Amino acid sequence: MAEYRPAAPDQEAFLEELVAARLLVRTGVPGVYGRGGAFEDVRLRFDDLVARLAAPDGPEVLRFPPLLPRRQLESSGYLKSFPHLAGSIFAFEGDEAQALAQEERAARHEDWSEYQSQSDLVLTPAACYPVYPAVGARGPLPAGGVTVDAGGAYVFRHEPSGDPARLQMFHQRELVRIGEPETVEAWRDAWRDRALDLLRGLGLDADFDVATDPFFGRSGRMLAASQRQQALKFEIQVQIAGPEPTAVASFNYHQDHFAAAHGITLADGGVAHTACLGFGEERIVLALLRTHGLDPAGWPEDVRSRLWTSA
Amino acid sequence: MAEYRPAAPDQEAFLEELVAARLLVRTGVPGVYGRGGAFEDVRLRFDDLVARLAAPDGPEVLRFPPLLPRRQLESSGYLKSFPHLAGSIFAFEGDEAQALAQEERAARHEDWSEYQSQSDLVLTPAACYPVYPAVGARGPLPAGGVTVDAGGAYVFRHEPSGDPARLQMFHQRELVRIGEPETVEAWRDAWRDRALDLLRGLGLDADFDVATDPFFGRSGRMLAASQRQQALKFEIQVQIAGPEPTAVASFNYHQDHFAAAHGITLADGGVAHTACLGFGEERIVLALLRTHGLDPAGWPEDVRSRLWTSA
Repeated sequence: MAEYRPAAPDQEAFLEELVAARLLVRTGVPGVYGRGGAFEDVRLRFDDLVARLAAPDGPEVLRFPPLLPRRQLESSGYLKSFPHLAGSIFAFEGDEAQALAQEERAARHEDWSEYQSQSDLVLTPAACYPVYPAVGARGPLPAGGVTVDAGGAYVFRHEPSGDPARLQMFHQRELVRIGEPETVEAWRDAWRDRALDLLRGLGLDADFDVATDPFFGRSGRMLAASQRQQALKFEIQVQIAGPEPTAVASFNYHQDHFAAAHGITLADGGVAHTACLGFGEERIVLALLRTHGLDPAGWPEDVRSRLWTSA
Repeated sequence: MAEYRPAAPDQEAFLEELVAARLLVRTGVPGVYGRGGAFEDVRLRFDDLVARLAAPDGPEVLRFPPLLPRRQLESSGYLKSFPHLAGSIFAFEGDEAQALAQEERAARHEDWSEYQSQSDLVLTPAACYPVYPAVGARGPLPAGGVTVDAGGAYVFRHEPSGDPARLQMFHQRELVRIGEPETVEAWRDAWRDRALDLLRGLGLDADFDVATDPFFGRSGRMLAASQRQQALKFEIQVQIAGPEPTAVASFNYHQDHFAAAHGITLADGGVAHTACLGFGEERIVLALLRTHGLDPAGWPEDVRSRLWTSA
């Protein structure tokens, strides 16, 4: 099992409250919870709020299941930067005798991993990943590039934790911009400001900062330093539970990394740049519950009207 | 790799049309597609239609990510009946040298499975699975039992196929009834009729029949015969593409199987029974596209008004 991060005392108390209020449901595995109706309602209203905010960009809607071709992950560099967070899918390929042996071991909760073979699928680590090959396969970008609304898509991170804000699978509310370098960088900066306004408008004490990804190992420290120096990643943070604020949105400028890997070219043949932003939907719901109380019906009227009023 | 089922010629042609119309997007893995905005809109409208139809039952809303504790799958009997369909999640647990070796192999698209260890999670095989332990953990059922609306939840089936209606991950629009045997059986039968009306009302040539699950191996044939004889499973089928109709909804009566496994008891202490129904959302969208044409804007007015008119 991966290293389990225990919860801070107030994270554990917050989780208890959420479970008692049937906002979250325990499954027995840390970082994997069911969501009650009131939690899900807030999540979907926030999801819709982002869709309305993005509508003027005229995005193309694309949705993907949380599965990625293994080959794409292998080519992406993800296993270099984040081997500890990736999840790969294994399945049974054996005969009837092996199926019986597997079942017997499993029923006794013993190790049945030897009967499982690696499939050609992995879990999606970031909601923008399936977007790039889909766009690249179409040939050169139209003039002005494209904006993709990838929805509130499940992503997987293998980081079991007692913190209810650190889930092993969660919804990233994802937007992707692909086009000329200046266009893409300006889009990311505009959304950073727009997102900050959005979250502050919901009564959250949100701030943004230059950020780094949780790169693996010693060489990861150099990657993080370089990422920070080039200001490639920003995060918006909110205090939920625990000793430090939690990132609830991030804004990543990939330069030509994904475009080069997936052959995405500008209308004039040059290599495109890409940027994406992702809101952590469950974290934003938790931040709202922590800030305004566990009963959304009792939240401040201006917060309620922003979430529950259709465009 | 699992045995790949090639597409029938008209399934292949239908997939080509769907891709050309940007309703589906290829990922490179059979049975794993992106969905365009028009496809997703129909799926969500159908999802909402089921929610409205279920509202008079007063269901409790519960949502789960498509991950199940491995321990639950081990205890469920799923690996006995469907070892070929299950997916389990593996992750990296090694040190920096192993991470480097894994990345080098992966970057060359060589076998890196030896660096992956089985985690305590599997992919959810059926949307009702996480519901039972959640309900069981609460103690005895209230009088009358409970109905759960588990939403349009992703489930995984490891059955790569060229048929666009056979996906490796898809949304099951799931309702679950837990209570006294007669109540549960009557609920399943009422929904079978209600679902048939719903689908026929959308212009689909839908029929229902007693059905069997695709049990594995020789002993599976006996399980299937017993399931059929007891009429524990019904399916609604629609002709989409290919030589035979495709199941688009199923209705399962589990008797006390899940209730006994998860300690779900009636208010008076007796063991409860359970039943569930699941609509295959992507299949229903495909059936609608096949029946009424690839442009939902041109669908018959009565079909459009049923889907796009809010309650």
